[in-house]
Amino acid sequence: MAQQHLDPTDPTAGVATGEALAAYLRAQATEFLRALRLHRKTGGGGSGPAHGGAPARAKSRVGEYAGVGENGAEQSVDAARALRRSARRISGSLHTFRPLLDPDWSEAMRPELAWLSGTLGLEHAYEARLERLLLALHRLSGAAVLPAQTVDAAVLESARAPAGPAPERGNLTVGAAKAGALLERQLTLARTRAHSTALQALGSSRFHAVADKVAVLASEVPLTLIAPSTDLRPLAAAAEERLTAAIGALPLVTAGHPYNAEALVHGLSPDPSPHPQDGPWHQVRLLLRLHRYAQEVLHAGDSAVDVRLLTAGQALNRHRDASEAAAAAAQAARTPRIAPATAYALGVLHADQRHEVEAARFAFQQAWQKQTVSAP
Amino acid sequence: MAQQHLDPTDPTAGVATGEALAAYLRAQATEFLRALRLHRKTGGGGSGPAHGGAPARAKSRVGEYAGVGENGAEQSVDAARALRRSARRISGSLHTFRPLLDPDWSEAMRPELAWLSGTLGLEHAYEARLERLLLALHRLSGAAVLPAQTVDAAVLESARAPAGPAPERGNLTVGAAKAGALLERQLTLARTRAHSTALQALGSSRFHAVADKVAVLASEVPLTLIAPSTDLRPLAAAAEERLTAAIGALPLVTAGHPYNAEALVHGLSPDPSPHPQDGPWHQVRLLLRLHRYAQEVLHAGDSAVDVRLLTAGQALNRHRDASEAAAAAAQAARTPRIAPATAYALGVLHADQRHEVEAARFAFQQAWQKQTVSAP
Repeated sequence: MAQQHLDPTDPTAGVATGEALAAYLRAQATEFLRALRLHRKTGGGGSGPAHGGAPARAKSRVGEYAGVGENGAEQSVDAARALRRSARRISGSLHTFRPLLDPDWSEAMRPELAWLSGTLGLEHAYEARLERLLLALHRLSGAAVLPAQTVDAAVLESARAPAGPAPERGNLTVGAAKAGALLERQLTLARTRAHSTALQALGSSRFHAVADKVAVLASEVPLTLIAPSTDLRPLAAAAEERLTAAIGALPLVTAGHPYNAEALVHGLSPDPSPHPQDGPWHQVRLLLRLHRYAQEVLHAGDSAVDVRLLTAGQALNRHRDASEAAAAAAQAARTPRIAPATAYALGVLHADQRHEVEAARFAFQQAWQKQTVSAP
Repeated sequence: MAQQHLDPTDPTAGVATGEALAAYLRAQATEFLRALRLHRKTGGGGSGPAHGGAPARAKSRVGEYAGVGENGAEQSVDAARALRRSARRISGSLHTFRPLLDPDWSEAMRPELAWLSGTLGLEHAYEARLERLLLALHRLSGAAVLPAQTVDAAVLESARAPAGPAPERGNLTVGAAKAGALLERQLTLARTRAHSTALQALGSSRFHAVADKVAVLASEVPLTLIAPSTDLRPLAAAAEERLTAAIGALPLVTAGHPYNAEALVHGLSPDPSPHPQDGPWHQVRLLLRLHRYAQEVLHAGDSAVDVRLLTAGQALNRHRDASEAAAAAAQAARTPRIAPATAYALGVLHADQRHEVEAARFAFQQAWQKQTVSAP
């Protein structure tokens, strides 16, 4: 490999080849194993299927959320995040640089990694969704935005409080307080279930099989024969082209006009499924991530982060979060026998989050435009 | 007066003086009387207090709204609009150029004109508010925007229709359809009452006294002694300064950042009164109108319209309309015993209109900024 770099007739001299891909995959696999060890050490799983242990554990997580906090639990959350982070990167690289890897191994590996990061991510997603919705309810009530750990108490408190302006204590109306309590009940239940599922997953033989494969990957990457001398750039460029094409199909002209009111169209449509108009944006979010990972492979060691790519990606994350929060508010409004005031508050909340969706599209458009204009 | 313009030592030569104000007031008074005659001819009143006649008349207006339409009724609406238009201009000019007019006469006249244009405007306001809300409900349901006269039928129809996409026929959900029907009931009732009140007003001795005063004004403007030779510009400049000061106090930096989410703060606040944050904008709307009328007095005969002033004014009208429509949706949601789905739709609608409020502020900020930058 060192020879290859010294050979002046080699057209791939100085450029990233399959060797760089192998180095990247080994590093990510090592990171995955490190996170897994940390996760096990901090009690994040590994104690078997945990059918009996899950409720107790879930209870402790609820305590954490209410502000109790444990150092170990925090580390466990960090470890799970790191696990997902490296699983996504391995999976993304297998996808983008597929022709350079053993196809059987690669095709068996990707769905397992997707299953793993999906399963591990769900609990955090429910937690973040609840926090987003409770903070929005407080904002909509004209209350000062409260730190997450005091929101719960304030919701319950203001449900009992008489109506009247007391913004510093969180002057939620009865409707907003009831909506908050309903969302909290539903999303906490979903989170608890996701937690149990994640614990079961981490104790499953399916997970152990993935972990074993990653352990092998940390030392031995199944490259194809020609991969070590193959230039990575065409495959990375193809990933970028897929991204560019998908962005080209987005309604960016509309998104660039503030207050276009597009995101709330279908806000009262009879279709209870997620907004179909969000799909292409979610797709771009995934393609942007693949592009970013491909750039990481190409520019390994180069710590410079493409700020504009990050900004665009953050806008799309916000888009996804707001889209899912809006759907959760709409879903909660379909709970039987809720009070009209609760339903009204959930309607306001839904529309608010749909406008967050629209705002995120605008932010993406602005970030992307900047990128296109000032790109070298 | 002709002499005055020829005297080269007169510092007011060629500039608008109290004479121009008198000419403007005479013209507006003549316009008022013409509109009044047309209104009486087309059956818009004049048939006495009309305690008995009002319901029948109101019924015919409801028919009109549903698409029946009568030429006479349309003319009557136009006439009422023209009446309000000249009443506002006379009232505004009395305010801005107060020192040039007989104070007793002026102070007696203004509240009467305000009462008149307020009373006459209410019916139209309720009608426009209902139309705005029904169109918004259709937009939010993902339906193609329907012309106003077919909205009612579509609302009723889709309430019976099974769920499923049929955008061209107006696929309102049950909640949206019920919300539309509720708003229609409440705002039609309010409009009918406003219509009766307007008819009573037009038949009242109070109105006849105003009309008599305007008739006198059409030939004889009670200027003060020095008014005919007084330069109007300082008083017009003072009106502009009041406008500029009020605009200076608006949160324009925030308004200029799209999706600042300010307008929906307090969206779920327990205070049922109109949003206090809208007040300063409504005030600017009135001051902008006074400034525009003062410019009309100064530049009589100059048919060039200040487009940017009009654009800013339209944004503030939209702001007012959306603010009142949002309040009507919130008010409807407080109707006892409504279904949760109805309340949810009203919540979405309220938030949608509050975002319209925010969009109107953004539009005003853009228009005003342009104005400041490119003003001579």
